[in-house]
Amino acid sequence: MTIIAFAGLGAMGLPMASNLLRAKHVVHGTDINPASLASLQAEGGIAAANPAEACRNADFLILMVVNAAQAEQVLFAQGALDALPQHATICLMATCPPGSVQAIAERVLASGRRFVDAPVSGGTAGAKQASLTVMAACDDATFADVRPVFDAIGGRVFHVGQRAGQGATVKTVNQLLCGVHIAVVAEAFALAAKAGVELDVLLEIMSGSSASSWMLKDRGPRMLQAEPEVTSAVDIFVKDLGIVLEAGREMKSALPLAAVAHQMFLASSGCGDGRSDDSQVIRSYHRLNGTGRES
Amino acid sequence: MTIIAFAGLGAMGLPMASNLLRAKHVVHGTDINPASLASLQAEGGIAAANPAEACRNADFLILMVVNAAQAEQVLFAQGALDALPQHATICLMATCPPGSVQAIAERVLASGRRFVDAPVSGGTAGAKQASLTVMAACDDATFADVRPVFDAIGGRVFHVGQRAGQGATVKTVNQLLCGVHIAVVAEAFALAAKAGVELDVLLEIMSGSSASSWMLKDRGPRMLQAEPEVTSAVDIFVKDLGIVLEAGREMKSALPLAAVAHQMFLASSGCGDGRSDDSQVIRSYHRLNGTGRES
Repeated sequence: MTIIAFAGLGAMGLPMASNLLRAKHVVHGTDINPASLASLQAEGGIAAANPAEACRNADFLILMVVNAAQAEQVLFAQGALDALPQHATICLMATCPPGSVQAIAERVLASGRRFVDAPVSGGTAGAKQASLTVMAACDDATFADVRPVFDAIGGRVFHVGQRAGQGATVKTVNQLLCGVHIAVVAEAFALAAKAGVELDVLLEIMSGSSASSWMLKDRGPRMLQAEPEVTSAVDIFVKDLGIVLEAGREMKSALPLAAVAHQMFLASSGCGDGRSDDSQVIRSYHRLNGTGRES
Repeated sequence: MTIIAFAGLGAMGLPMASNLLRAKHVVHGTDINPASLASLQAEGGIAAANPAEACRNADFLILMVVNAAQAEQVLFAQGALDALPQHATICLMATCPPGSVQAIAERVLASGRRFVDAPVSGGTAGAKQASLTVMAACDDATFADVRPVFDAIGGRVFHVGQRAGQGATVKTVNQLLCGVHIAVVAEAFALAAKAGVELDVLLEIMSGSSASSWMLKDRGPRMLQAEPEVTSAVDIFVKDLGIVLEAGREMKSALPLAAVAHQMFLASSGCGDGRSDDSQVIRSYHRLNGTGRES
């Protein structure tokens, strides 16, 4: 019987913990939100009073907190690391810059415990359906041991490298592509709008051509709406492209397209659109060019 | 029986003219290359001595020349426009900047003849299989008349607008997306390479995630090769993103992502890679960052 401590029962973490319970694992949850703990209990999980209590006797600690600072807080300030048995494995699954992941990994490994750098993609839908993509970096033996845990929450589990930071790099690359793909659709549609081209016909053509992307098909239709439903906010890409650029700085790699895309999301946020759907980065282009609803 | 004058029997034009012949149209071809004219004759077409001769008695003139300057040369300097009957329709199907298309359209319309701005996408494979995407801008009556001609060469025929320049704008948007999509895959893969991530695993993950694009799946595998087969050269995107940026200047629209992507293709060309496969824009990133084979 595997005992799993789970820190961070938010929009992603709670459904992931539920899927672990469904796979017959024992889950001790910890979160600052009492409602999340109550939800976990209702599904058969155990609500811990604090991170250290959750970790006592755990085989694995899954960190699905908001960022690297929260992971450090839970692990080092709130006593989770010290409370874990010596054989335990820490899985950092939140999206963090590769350099921060490496720094956390070093402190964990120095304590004699094992570490897996394993961010996910697939969003809340993937978390609920246990269809997340898991991008795990760790040595082969650790990967073999953690695999049943990841299989309970993910549909596609990849072993992307041996070193902590490589999983975070793959996730960074994913966000780099996603962010630039959204921004370039906005850039292209704003140009077409200025020329008076019907954007719904344009979208139909581009969706079936070599110009297509997953983001074009998903965000494109919402880009044509004035106030679309928010599936992911502008500020998420302000944060995620920020992590991408931080990774570039850490590795001394130039990322000129990501840097430009980040500026466009940042400008949208600065104009008050941070909580709007990320497709609304198109408003930055309309403002730049004096077109559309914003002019 | 429809008589079609066809100017520009190159890698795209010749198979398009062949498909018009297969659809029982009469085709009078004109090209500076005698071998192309001979190929057209072998398929049942008529080789004209010059553009004016091809146009006498033609209902349609299709221009599939290299650029706007060649289209102007054929139409105005070599007498094609004056030779066409008064009822004739000129279809400009080459990729040209929207402003150049508008300027050509004005001179054609002033002569009393009709004009269709109708660039295509789909490459030589689409030209051979009659599966091109046609993006036509003209008035409704003209579109109804020209449609059977386009149906003989294209699989997806769209009426994208009423005004000349709008077809060229849609094609411009297509090339903007394609060019930035290739460059951003290079940017992302170069970052991952620096982190020591296995690029074939990365490609597999990204191909099945929200980070996917048509270009990622098509150019990604070739980006992992040192000297891949050339399916489309770096210099094609130096030209096409140049047209994209020219369109932005004409319309006074900022295109920051396209501008950056253009610089990366331009730098690849400047380092002697102009005739390499366009996936090799990744060499620009390797040179920038001091990674990979180029460092």
